[in-house]
Amino acid sequence: MSNQQAELIVKMNLAMWDAQNKKFAELIEKLTDEQLMNETAPNRNTGIYLLGHIIAVSDDMIRLFDLGDRIVPEYLDIFIKNPDKSNKTFPSIVDLKKAYQTVTILLNNRFSQFSLEDWLSKHTAVSDEDFAKDPMRNKLNVLISRTIHLANHLGQMAYLNK
Amino acid sequence: MSNQQAELIVKMNLAMWDAQNKKFAELIEKLTDEQLMNETAPNRNTGIYLLGHIIAVSDDMIRLFDLGDRIVPEYLDIFIKNPDKSNKTFPSIVDLKKAYQTVTILLNNRFSQFSLEDWLSKHTAVSDEDFAKDPMRNKLNVLISRTIHLANHLGQMAYLNK
Repeated sequence: MSNQQAELIVKMNLAMWDAQNKKFAELIEKLTDEQLMNETAPNRNTGIYLLGHIIAVSDDMIRLFDLGDRIVPEYLDIFIKNPDKSNKTFPSIVDLKKAYQTVTILLNNRFSQFSLEDWLSKHTAVSDEDFAKDPMRNKLNVLISRTIHLANHLGQMAYLNK
Repeated sequence: MSNQQAELIVKMNLAMWDAQNKKFAELIEKLTDEQLMNETAPNRNTGIYLLGHIIAVSDDMIRLFDLGDRIVPEYLDIFIKNPDKSNKTFPSIVDLKKAYQTVTILLNNRFSQFSLEDWLSKHTAVSDEDFAKDPMRNKLNVLISRTIHLANHLGQMAYLNK
C-alpha cells in the first residue's frame, strides 16, 4: 500500500515532465525557423539558443543518471558554458530538432524502466557521504528540477509565437 | 520504510514549490513599481497583471484544498477570467504584494500540517467517481502543477529585470 503511494507520486512527477516536453515539442514544431532565430524579447536569449540550452541540459541527465555518454557533448560548451551571442557556431535548426528528439526518446525509454529504488538512488554528481546526509539529492529530484527549468524557458519561448 | 519514501518525495515537491515562491518573492521585491507596470515583452502581459495572476491562482488553491474561503476573491475576475489590458482596475502594487504574502503564508502554514494522506486525497474540483478512476487527481498533483505554472511565468517576469 505505502509503496504504491510512492510509486503514484513518481508517476505524477513523470507525467509533468512528459507534459512539459510535449508542450516544448509542439512549440518548436509550430515555430518557423525564422521565428526560432529571433530573440524571445529585446536583448534576451534567442529561440535557437534556448532550444540548444534545453537539449544540453537534458543531455546532461544521461550522465547524471549514469545511463551512458552524452549524445551531443559539444552542446555543453555552446549552450551551457557560454551565453547566447558569444560568436559560437550553432548547429542547424534541423540538427537541433533531431538532437532534441534523440535525447528525449532515450531518456524516456530508460525512465520507463526505472524502479522506485532507481528514482530514489543518488545521481552521479553527489558523493556517497553527501547523499547519506541528504537523501533528497536523488535522481527524481533532478527530474523535478529539470521540469521546472524547462517550464521556465518555455514561458519565454512562447513569446516567439506571434 | 516505504512510507518514508513517499514522504521524502512529497518533501522534494514541497521544496520545489518553496524555491519557486522564494524566487518570485525576491524578484517582485527587486523590481521597481515602474518595472512591474511594464510589459514583460512587446505586446505581452505586464508584470502587474502576472503578479495578480499568480496570486489569484495560489488563492484558488485555498478552495481546491478545502482550507476555507479565498482571501482575494475579486482577483479571479481581474486576473484569471479576464486578460491583461481589458480595462479592469488593478489593485495597487502595495496591495498586490501584501496579498501575495498573505496567501502564500496561509498556504505554507497549512501545508506544513498536511499528512501524506492529506496530500494524496482528492481536491475539491474532482468528483468521488472521477477520483476513484484516477487517483493522480489529488492535492499534491495540484501543488506540482501550480509550481510549474509559477516557473513558467517567472521566466517571463525575469525579463522585467533590466
